[in-house]
Amino acid sequence: MNKIITVGREFGSGGRELGRRLSEHLGYAYYDQEIIVEIAKRTELSEQYVQNIVERHYPSSFPIHIGRTFYTVTNPVMEQANIIFQEQCEILREMAAESDCVIVGRCADYILQELAPFRIFVYADMPERLKRCRKKAPAQEHFSDKELKSHIKRIDRNRAAYYQFRTGQKWGSPSNYDLLVNTTRVPIKLTALALAKLFL
Amino acid sequence: MNKIITVGREFGSGGRELGRRLSEHLGYAYYDQEIIVEIAKRTELSEQYVQNIVERHYPSSFPIHIGRTFYTVTNPVMEQANIIFQEQCEILREMAAESDCVIVGRCADYILQELAPFRIFVYADMPERLKRCRKKAPAQEHFSDKELKSHIKRIDRNRAAYYQFRTGQKWGSPSNYDLLVNTTRVPIKLTALALAKLFL
Repeated sequence: MNKIITVGREFGSGGRELGRRLSEHLGYAYYDQEIIVEIAKRTELSEQYVQNIVERHYPSSFPIHIGRTFYTVTNPVMEQANIIFQEQCEILREMAAESDCVIVGRCADYILQELAPFRIFVYADMPERLKRCRKKAPAQEHFSDKELKSHIKRIDRNRAAYYQFRTGQKWGSPSNYDLLVNTTRVPIKLTALALAKLFL
Repeated sequence: MNKIITVGREFGSGGRELGRRLSEHLGYAYYDQEIIVEIAKRTELSEQYVQNIVERHYPSSFPIHIGRTFYTVTNPVMEQANIIFQEQCEILREMAAESDCVIVGRCADYILQELAPFRIFVYADMPERLKRCRKKAPAQEHFSDKELKSHIKRIDRNRAAYYQFRTGQKWGSPSNYDLLVNTTRVPIKLTALALAKLFL
């Protein structure tokens, strides 16, 4: 059976970098944005649209009223989100079947649970996440610290709601993972090097 | 400044073994039961008594009434617990000043926070903890699975309440640690070897 490592991560914590470095040390395939690209290809939706849909939770229906009578109407965005999630599950299983790999995000820890992946969650203190986001932001982005913090928190809230909705579990809760890494104080480079020893 | 690693741990998770192995790989001093022995020596209380007092939280006072008037009376056990805690803080600071070290339990992560220790929390799934406790139990101990589980949960509840009372923080919550390790699926021996790389 292939070795699968999944990486959940708070926004701005460097989870993606840790996953990538880990895959390089181990010679494993690395999947992150590739999953979005593949979903977009199969569903014939734009990558941007798929990116917006995944990691968000939409209400499955909403109420309308005609005269004095209330009806619930299926939310078409939610229907599309469900189709995308089905594709995502399919793609993740294909990737996991192909070779040893590191998969970032996408509820892979839950979707692939029958393959017993090693489940990492990466997080960091807020000042470190602000610093990291500033360093990676495009030059034209001019968020104040307060705006950036609220942006980070909003993305995390979305990820948590999406994870909760799709898995019924609490995002970032230790019981759902094998290892939780705070990237605030130890360089990610060194952490990746050390963690790789767990799989060699 | 000396390098300090603190290890918080769920009962039966193997945190003590992980800490000991880590200290052996790194050539650091290892403190666990030694802290109790030292407190007992300095306070002239028995080791057993000190062991019973630490990692428990007692109410600081209790109400009595004389006639129709209520008074609060200081709880003498709590007073003794406070003296013991003061000694514990003193001893931990002395140990940390002496050499690089690994310290298990005793709120060391919080007490030594000014020395920026690397804070590990070790946990495991319940079946693994039951198995571990059975393996380490004295031959005359005959708990049923249900009894053992409730014993484990009681000890954890005490540790959580003690930690919360002394630090104002939530025991086992990722934000208070640099690394959380679930010992269910990876051998502790291998984990200790890998984690040692973070400090070399």
